[in-house]
Amino acid sequence: MNIALVLYVVGHVLCIEAALMLVPMAVSVLTGVGDWIYFAYTIVPLILAGFFLRLKKPKIKKMTTREGLAAVAFSWIFLAAFGALPFYFSGYFNSYIDCFFETVSGFTTTGATILTDIEGLKNGGLMFWRSFTHWIGGMGVLVFVLAILPNMDASNVQLLKAESPGPTPGKVVPRLKETARILYLIYFGLTILHILCLLATGMPLFDSLIHSMGSAGTGGFSNMNASVGAYGNPAAEWVIAVFMMLFGVNFSLYYLVLKKQFKDVFKNEEFRLYLGIIVAVVVCMTLNIARDYYDGSWPDAIRAAFFQVSSVMTTTGYSTADFNLWPTFSKMLIVTLMIVGASAGSTGGGIKVSRLLALFKSLREEFRRLIHPRRVHAPRMDGRIIEKNTLKGILIFFFTYIMIAGAAMVVISLDGYDMESIMTAVFSALGNIGPGLGAVGNFSGFSAFSKLVLSFCMLAGRLELFPMLILFIPSSWKKSY
Amino acid sequence: MNIALVLYVVGHVLCIEAALMLVPMAVSVLTGVGDWIYFAYTIVPLILAGFFLRLKKPKIKKMTTREGLAAVAFSWIFLAAFGALPFYFSGYFNSYIDCFFETVSGFTTTGATILTDIEGLKNGGLMFWRSFTHWIGGMGVLVFVLAILPNMDASNVQLLKAESPGPTPGKVVPRLKETARILYLIYFGLTILHILCLLATGMPLFDSLIHSMGSAGTGGFSNMNASVGAYGNPAAEWVIAVFMMLFGVNFSLYYLVLKKQFKDVFKNEEFRLYLGIIVAVVVCMTLNIARDYYDGSWPDAIRAAFFQVSSVMTTTGYSTADFNLWPTFSKMLIVTLMIVGASAGSTGGGIKVSRLLALFKSLREEFRRLIHPRRVHAPRMDGRIIEKNTLKGILIFFFTYIMIAGAAMVVISLDGYDMESIMTAVFSALGNIGPGLGAVGNFSGFSAFSKLVLSFCMLAGRLELFPMLILFIPSSWKKSY
Repeated sequence: MNIALVLYVVGHVLCIEAALMLVPMAVSVLTGVGDWIYFAYTIVPLILAGFFLRLKKPKIKKMTTREGLAAVAFSWIFLAAFGALPFYFSGYFNSYIDCFFETVSGFTTTGATILTDIEGLKNGGLMFWRSFTHWIGGMGVLVFVLAILPNMDASNVQLLKAESPGPTPGKVVPRLKETARILYLIYFGLTILHILCLLATGMPLFDSLIHSMGSAGTGGFSNMNASVGAYGNPAAEWVIAVFMMLFGVNFSLYYLVLKKQFKDVFKNEEFRLYLGIIVAVVVCMTLNIARDYYDGSWPDAIRAAFFQVSSVMTTTGYSTADFNLWPTFSKMLIVTLMIVGASAGSTGGGIKVSRLLALFKSLREEFRRLIHPRRVHAPRMDGRIIEKNTLKGILIFFFTYIMIAGAAMVVISLDGYDMESIMTAVFSALGNIGPGLGAVGNFSGFSAFSKLVLSFCMLAGRLELFPMLILFIPSSWKKSY
Repeated sequence: MNIALVLYVVGHVLCIEAALMLVPMAVSVLTGVGDWIYFAYTIVPLILAGFFLRLKKPKIKKMTTREGLAAVAFSWIFLAAFGALPFYFSGYFNSYIDCFFETVSGFTTTGATILTDIEGLKNGGLMFWRSFTHWIGGMGVLVFVLAILPNMDASNVQLLKAESPGPTPGKVVPRLKETARILYLIYFGLTILHILCLLATGMPLFDSLIHSMGSAGTGGFSNMNASVGAYGNPAAEWVIAVFMMLFGVNFSLYYLVLKKQFKDVFKNEEFRLYLGIIVAVVVCMTLNIARDYYDGSWPDAIRAAFFQVSSVMTTTGYSTADFNLWPTFSKMLIVTLMIVGASAGSTGGGIKVSRLLALFKSLREEFRRLIHPRRVHAPRMDGRIIEKNTLKGILIFFFTYIMIAGAAMVVISLDGYDMESIMTAVFSALGNIGPGLGAVGNFSGFSAFSKLVLSFCMLAGRLELFPMLILFIPSSWKKSY
């Protein structure tokens, strides 16, 4: 591996992080909470590390898949390792591991917290930073580097490939840098719109910012202990539910909307299935909970069901109700959505709707082949044939996903929680959702070792498995320059 | 589809079943329990149906994959439908659905029971029949038909393919019929040996028969409410644990043993992994339970762990201890083994060790390709290259397995059990294990609808998914003759 090149990229990322920390610092000063000092303490080592790593310019700048994957993995690990420092310096967290877990959870847009009293953090710089990591992590940091920096060479497609969610990176225009800029503008615009809508429902400005960043990154950190349910504000719940759903859509569709190609948007098979699943599950869940849990009040039941479905399917993880009390059928639907996840090219996690769609299509084709061996059709999506290698990649992704989940469950089960809590904690971490079911409304009770395992799951889930796994393959460390 | 041919095969199978029912009838007379009459009532419609179905000889005897799959699926459904009648006539069961569930559970070698008081059935013909279905189902009924009947044409390879467990049907000798005979002889011989060993431990003859048939088919029906634990007989527990493990091995390896090719046996990669998993999990589980659950008595803990691991991994489902009380780590290991299953070509269920081995090998290869794109090695098993189509088939099998499990979980969660019970009930049915965890030590509490869904899962699991699924594909019903 060309380690010099990898470290050079990581160095850039750390400098960006130092710059990004100026935002929560400013918020800290404006809100008067006074926690800006912890960011100041962090920015110094961040800049030092960034400059140190960039000191040695790599001789070979060509980035192969291997370096791309490793650069992404290390960038995210270092981002979280340094991003955790303000929390650690504040003394509000029990240990550095807890801070690291919380920051990984932020950047990976998971939203799983180890805080038992979130509100005790106060609405200042730290609280803002916690949610700001969601917003940064939503679109990917390396994409950001790419969009900002002019001095990297064209082989950066490897970076984008490794970091962007879903099987096909959303190349909306031929030039990569242009694509990244357009996607960021859409992301930024939708976030602003979200904030304005929340303000219109009467939510305070700080809270509107926090929840908009949480929805935009499909993260799920709230500044309230009771999440969105704390406000008792149905209008705000509707706004957040709708925006979560919007951020779970492939962003390249918004580019089509901007270009007024509405037909292409509604013809998109993943989008149709995504909406179809949401509608179907909302109907089932509403019928399941309306009578016994909402006294037959249909508007309340529909709002609760829609909010929950939108929150879990987009892997955000906000909540307005304690779904642990809901019937098993609704809980099983929630777990299923956890695994399915959002659309490719959105900020959401999980296996992704388009992957499952491709798998179902090829499964159907396999059956056709069994029944009529002579009639062979290649399965298609959006009119294009699903390539054999794409399909194999998706199948292997699916297998790897389930294997990582299984291994993590066995390992963290040593902590002694019940099975439901452990299974949902792992799927929640791997799918970047946030809360699990059962005992894991928050993750403070897990051992330090389990927190690291779950951090690994969150990173693996956010980076589409392979960047994190490649670090464990000895032969990827061999020198190649 | 050539329905005439399918029905003709089913007709044969029903006649075989009528003949097989003479065995429990004889047992009933010998034990003096007097339940032979229920078999007499059943044999009459069985023979009528068998003759009726065989009346119309199919014009075209060539069996394509489609007919092979459908013949297997229908044979098993009818076997269970008629096999349930003696239970129904006895009046000991609550409903015909319960009888059907119990018989499907028997033939598929699952061993899940809806009886809350098994001992109330008395040690007679019905109790024998219940376990005899395990023994019949273990090796497959159509293989039996093939081994006995001379008048079917050579295209019967389709039948064997569809019915034999695992990705590669164990063709030990070139001629198919000869293969079936050899496998049956090995099966028969091992069962006799098992009975003799159990008798030597002091277990009564009837109980030895019951438990030997249960181990041989990797079924798991016991005639005691407390399963094997009821005897408090450590020697018998060791015997059963060892034999369960033996019946979870690919039978073609025993043929190699008979031919004294021991080297080839120990070089077999699936066999090595199978033993490796058993040893590793027994060690972990023993360490996990020895101190707190067996007062530090290592022999007791090792025996309990080995029995449980052997029982679950081979998908038998006997028990000597209430593992619901064990720590979550041990329970999670049990669930993992449930999904892994036994070796291909054994009588056990689950996904099968060789499938997972092939998937892991190709996953490793995929990583190598990522890291060194120019060095391409095809993954190998037992020295032979894993063909791309084999691999794709296994990947699709894995995906389908998980999808069926997920769908079944969502549907039966309407019954309102907790998640752990529902998840393990489905994996238990689909993997042909028997008991689940939590509330499902027995399945009597499920609704009739859930019992049918679980029956479908048991059949799908036993027949390697596709024969059962093909029945739901409309185009497979089109006439082809």
